[in-house]
Order: sequence, then structure tokens, then C-alpha cells
Amino acid sequence: MTFDLETARAYDRRDPLRAYRDRFVLPQDVVYLDGNSLGALPRATAGRLEAVVGEEWGRDLIRSWNKHDWIVAPQRVGAKIAPLIGARPHEVIVADSTSVNLHKVLAAALGLRPDRRVVLSEPGNFPTDLYIVQGLAGAGRCELRLADAEVIADQIDAEVAVVLLTHVHYKSGRMHDMARITTAAHAAGALVIWDLSHSAGAVPIDLGGCGADFAVGCGYKYLNGGPGAPAFLYVAERHQATARSPLTGWMGHAAGFEFRDDYEPAAGVARFLCGTPPILGLTVLEVGVELIAEIGVDALARKSRELSEAFIGLVMGAGRAVELELASPADPHARGSHVSFRHAHAYEVCQALIGAGVIGDFRAPDILRFGFAPAYLGFEDVWRAADQLSRVLDQRLWAREEFRVRQAVT
Amino acid sequence: MTFDLETARAYDRRDPLRAYRDRFVLPQDVVYLDGNSLGALPRATAGRLEAVVGEEWGRDLIRSWNKHDWIVAPQRVGAKIAPLIGARPHEVIVADSTSVNLHKVLAAALGLRPDRRVVLSEPGNFPTDLYIVQGLAGAGRCELRLADAEVIADQIDAEVAVVLLTHVHYKSGRMHDMARITTAAHAAGALVIWDLSHSAGAVPIDLGGCGADFAVGCGYKYLNGGPGAPAFLYVAERHQATARSPLTGWMGHAAGFEFRDDYEPAAGVARFLCGTPPILGLTVLEVGVELIAEIGVDALARKSRELSEAFIGLVMGAGRAVELELASPADPHARGSHVSFRHAHAYEVCQALIGAGVIGDFRAPDILRFGFAPAYLGFEDVWRAADQLSRVLDQRLWAREEFRVRQAVT
Repeated sequence: MTFDLETARAYDRRDPLRAYRDRFVLPQDVVYLDGNSLGALPRATAGRLEAVVGEEWGRDLIRSWNKHDWIVAPQRVGAKIAPLIGARPHEVIVADSTSVNLHKVLAAALGLRPDRRVVLSEPGNFPTDLYIVQGLAGAGRCELRLADAEVIADQIDAEVAVVLLTHVHYKSGRMHDMARITTAAHAAGALVIWDLSHSAGAVPIDLGGCGADFAVGCGYKYLNGGPGAPAFLYVAERHQATARSPLTGWMGHAAGFEFRDDYEPAAGVARFLCGTPPILGLTVLEVGVELIAEIGVDALARKSRELSEAFIGLVMGAGRAVELELASPADPHARGSHVSFRHAHAYEVCQALIGAGVIGDFRAPDILRFGFAPAYLGFEDVWRAADQLSRVLDQRLWAREEFRVRQAVT
Repeated sequence: MTFDLETARAYDRRDPLRAYRDRFVLPQDVVYLDGNSLGALPRATAGRLEAVVGEEWGRDLIRSWNKHDWIVAPQRVGAKIAPLIGARPHEVIVADSTSVNLHKVLAAALGLRPDRRVVLSEPGNFPTDLYIVQGLAGAGRCELRLADAEVIADQIDAEVAVVLLTHVHYKSGRMHDMARITTAAHAAGALVIWDLSHSAGAVPIDLGGCGADFAVGCGYKYLNGGPGAPAFLYVAERHQATARSPLTGWMGHAAGFEFRDDYEPAAGVARFLCGTPPILGLTVLEVGVELIAEIGVDALARKSRELSEAFIGLVMGAGRAVELELASPADPHARGSHVSFRHAHAYEVCQALIGAGVIGDFRAPDILRFGFAPAYLGFEDVWRAADQLSRVLDQRLWAREEFRVRQAVT
């Protein structure tokens, strides 16, 4: 099949999610394949934010904690995320950052397995996940053990307290079999924490069906919650009465507004709150979550597979195997919503593509990463991106001096 | 002296800070005496936020981390807070919540005093401060000891690792002598953490001059950073190379964008960053901080004393001593920017005042608290508030059934 521009446009015309593109603000002159790093701006966000700032903060001031239910925003937005990840509404809250939430649920999980010390993860997991374990290890709370993804389920022995994995790998897009690994962990007496940062809002997740213990995830990727959006965390109901957060702030207290001297954890997942909730961040995230929930994860995942398959077909079909190596699983059901390639000059290729209006990203040392956020991308975007990639490689545009300049964030 | 409405208006006309009132959005029909809990909305906030959302996030998308320097926002806003608290620009960052920051600096301070276990604080300190200590105590990291404020400097013995105090007490407004207590702590070999939540932006603070070790503070009170604004933390330069944050996230890594498996703390205070910085929250806080810095803390503190003295004079001068007890120091130099009274029915009085358009707040069990945010309040506000308080007490309006209904947040 020749997947040319006309074919791409025909696909777009038949795309049942086509109308959602206009629900996002997207610049005219770029193809944005980095929604897995920072999701696009929903069109409704500015108005909602204006109302919360102008009317709630500006006019109702402190009264808004009650009048506009600010105080339950972490639970309200969490409950809206819950169906996207196979959780029940009272199992999810929005709070802090993914890293801070990881610290909280990891310390809590270790507390539930006091006779075990090992946290099992994989080398090359998203760095903050490993760093958070190392922080707790440095405090004498655990030790980190790494095992390759392919064999990790077989490495869960009686020393392992917690298996900590990212569901969809940030570089390769490889998706773990959540049910299989969770079952293996439980069979060995371990608990599992899933980092859903690269999967929430993009692929179906069934935390409840898999029997997962804890999870965390990011608000600013496929949930379109804006740069540095607050993150979410999940605690299975069966652990809520016994799991203890190490960050014992007043918002996680059973009766925070009684201002008592002694800490007593709140009932339920609310004990994993810590400081005052970031109302503006929660407002913006809520808009993004509502939009993703409206579209539906199954439809998003289906379209994501179609987009990424088309892209891989265009790129690899053009005889690029000499220069580019597919770094993602070839099976679209084994991937999340992004596709990665290795290239010896990945940084420069990425910069040259950005110069040509195709925004993907680079992950050290040699990964070119392209995210296919299905809520707002179309097949013409895919065709244009592949076309520009061909041009950058054919004409060796990446070799230009200007594309070697390193940025602070890459 | 009779401080009547005409006098109040005359004071307002001579007030050198009078013009700043219009730099804030304030509802016409209220006297807002709760800026110590949630600061008012600066008029410039909406526009700045609109630009960051629409132009930076919406148009420049992921490129904004470099193009708009999002990546250094925690340091940039921290550097703007620094002069307000007597710190150097490289000693302050904005990150997370006050509670999370307390956990970070407390764990770091304990790490610097490995042979000592006691954290000394005072009973009735702001609850989250005590709770955070209790969380670390529960993990076996320390033990909490409490001593009354009046004698605390004498209680710092060789077992004390860290003295943790809130500079201005959230209920009484009583201000600790930062220099004296810090000196006493150092003489005993202990470190000091100051919680500046109720003082930053309202009273002069000289962390550097006092030799303070660590500090944290709130962004949404006198800094007008909006509900749940990100908080700040201070690490004295001399501790930056050795102090270690327990929340070892990727943003505190020496080379976060090299995505290595092993954690290595960043140089300087940046190692106390953890997750991805909340860009919208930082943007909003920056507007508030710039405005407070423009006015200047000395001028703000002077006006605060004048406002609160006028209020106390009006309230206590009217023969209220039977019903109301001043719960704040009578000396304005020994107070922060809020004034509290005890009343047997403080909750109901507070609700009745809110019903009359005077917004103060209640702190359990019997405190009526009035904040005098000097950036936007005037003497007429003070007169009106005292007038309504007289009416509520004279007519026993607080005894009405409607004012007994408890709110979620009080």
C-alpha cells in the first residue's frame, strides 16, 4: 500500500475522533509529536482557569475552599482519572508530583512488607523512579535490585518487598504485561507499584482487574494538564487502612482543621495528601482529564496504534533500516502511544526536525522519540512527519552546525 | 483619640502605599482580613497567566522549557523571594508545598547531625510542622520534643539536632526572636529550621544575618501566589554541599537530562528540587512576589503595625475586654501581620462577621483571627471591620442558628 498524502487525508476524513482536534489549541506550523512529554492545550482550559482565578480566587477569596469545593479537588479530579486506569473513584487522588507520589507509595509499600528489603525494578527505568528508590535506600529503608524486563517476573523472590515498574517505557514505548507481573509478584508475596506516566490516557489500564497495589502517574502528558501539572496516585482499597504515607502533612490528617498537635492519618486514600492542594493546577488538569474521559481510552488506543503503525510503515518502508533502528516493539499491542528509533546522531536529527516544524524529542544517548497523542493528531500529521524525517536524513540536514547546539532541556 | 471613619479616611489619604490597593483585584462588598491565609489576586496575574498558557504552553509547547526558561523557574522565582527573607539568590528555590519542603529540609538537617535525634519545637506550632516531624519520627529518624515558646531557647541541649519553629505563630501572631534562638541553637550544636509561612512578605526577615540554617515558607499568604501556590525553601550556602534531600527526584539530579540510572545530587540548592516544576503555579507566584518586592517589606511591616494597632485600639477601646481577650502580643514589634482574639463563641462570631462582609477566620478552639495584609488594606477597612465586630457582639448576631453551621474548611 502506498500511504501518500491523499491516503492520509482520506483516513483523517473517516477518523471518528477527528472532531476532537479542534478541542485543542495547536500551532498551525508544527506537527506536534511530543504530547507524550507535554500534552497540548485544551481549548477549554483558558476559560476555566480565568473563572477560577477571577471569580473564585479574586472575588470569593478564602471562601472558595468551601463555596467552590476547592478542599475536595484532589479527590474530585482523582475520581475522574479513576475510570481511565481501571480504578474505583475512592482509590485515586491528585497531589504533588509523580516523583513525590512515588516516594509516598514506595515508603508505604515497604511499610506493608517489613520483613523484606528489596525493591525490584529494571535498568533504564525512568530515572526518577530509580532515584526515588535510591533515596529511600540511602536512608536505610530498602535496597534496589535491577533485572531486565524480559526476566523480571522470574526474579521476584522472597526478599522482594516491592516491584516498581513503569508500565510503558519512556524511551522504547514497550508496555509491560501488568496482569502477569502483578500476579507473579503477589505469588511471591511482593507488592507492585505501577508508574503510569506514559500510559494514563493513552492505553487501557485495568489496575483493579490486575489486582495492582499502588500506582502513580503524570498529569502533563496524555492527560493534558499543563507543564508541571499535579500528578496522581492510586492505593488499592484493601491497602488504604494500613498503608501509611511518610509525608504526614496536614491535608492528610483525619481532622486537619481541628489543628491538633498529633498526627492521625485520614481514612482512605486522602491520607496520601500532604500540603495544601494546588488549586490552579488541579483546575487545569481537570479540563484535560474530562476531555480524555469524554473521548474514551479504547478509542484513543485504537487510533494511536493506527497512527504509529502508519508512521513506522512510512519510515521503515522507505529503506531506512541502515540509519534507523526501531527501538520500540514492532507489535502495536506491546507498545504505548510513542515510537522510538535509534540513530547515531539522534540529537542532531531531532533538532533538524524541530527546525522543520516536526516536534519529537531526543532521549540520551541515541533515541529519537515520536509521540502519537491520538486525541489531536491525524494521519496527515503522520505523513508530514515521515516526509520531513526523510528529507532530514536524505539531505543530511542534521549535519549542520546549528543542530549541534545543546539545549538545557533535551 | 477618637479613631472614627473620617480619621481613617484621612490616614488612607496620607498612606504612601495607598496606590498599591489598585494593583489587586478586591471585591467591593467585603473587608478582607484573611490575606494571611489566602492573599488577594494581583491585577497583573490574569494577563501573565494567559500569556504563559496561551503563548508558551499553547503555541511553543515543549520548546518552552528552553525558549521561555521554564526549566529555571524554581531558581528564578526563588531568587526574587530571597531579598524578602534576607537570603542570597542562590539560597532559595520554589518547589512543592510547605509541608513537603519541611520534610526535605528536616531530613537534610537530621542528616547533618547524625549523632543527635531530638527535634525541638513548641506545642501548638502549626500542625503540619509537628506532623512532618512525627512522620520522620515514625520512620525512626528522630524524636519530637516540645517546649513552650518562652523557654525554648533554654531547652536546646546536646541531644537536640534541630530546632524547628514557625517565625510568626499562625494563631497568636507572636513573632520569635530569630537571631536569639538561632544563636542559642548554634551554641548548643543544633541546627535551626524556620517556617516563614506567616512572615514572608509581611515582616522583615534576615536569615543570613541570623545565621539561619534552613527555612521554608508559603507562597499563597502574603506573597499572593494563589490557592495552593508552590512553596519555597532556603538552604544556607554553607550547608548546600553536604545537605541531602530525601526526595531524590530527577529535577534535583546533577544532570537530569542525561537520564542516568544512578542518582547524583545537583550542586547547590537545586538538589532540593524533586519532580517537574509546576510552571503555572510558579508563574502566578512570581507575579505576587514581584509586587511585594516592589513595595518593600519595611514599608509593608510599618503599615501593618499601624493597621493592626488601630484595629486593636478600636476593638479593645470599646470596652470589649469582657468578651474578647487579645491573644496576640500587645507590642506590635513582637507580632507578625495578624491579630487574634479569644472569644467563647469564636466560630459563630467569625461566621456572623463573614455574613456582614468582614472576612477574618476562625482557628479552633476559640480564636478569631484578623490578617492585615498591608499591600492592599487601608484604615477605612480597619474602621469598618471594627464597626461590624461591635455590631455582631452588641446585637449578639453570632447567636443566630445560621452561624453555627460548620463548614468543611474553617
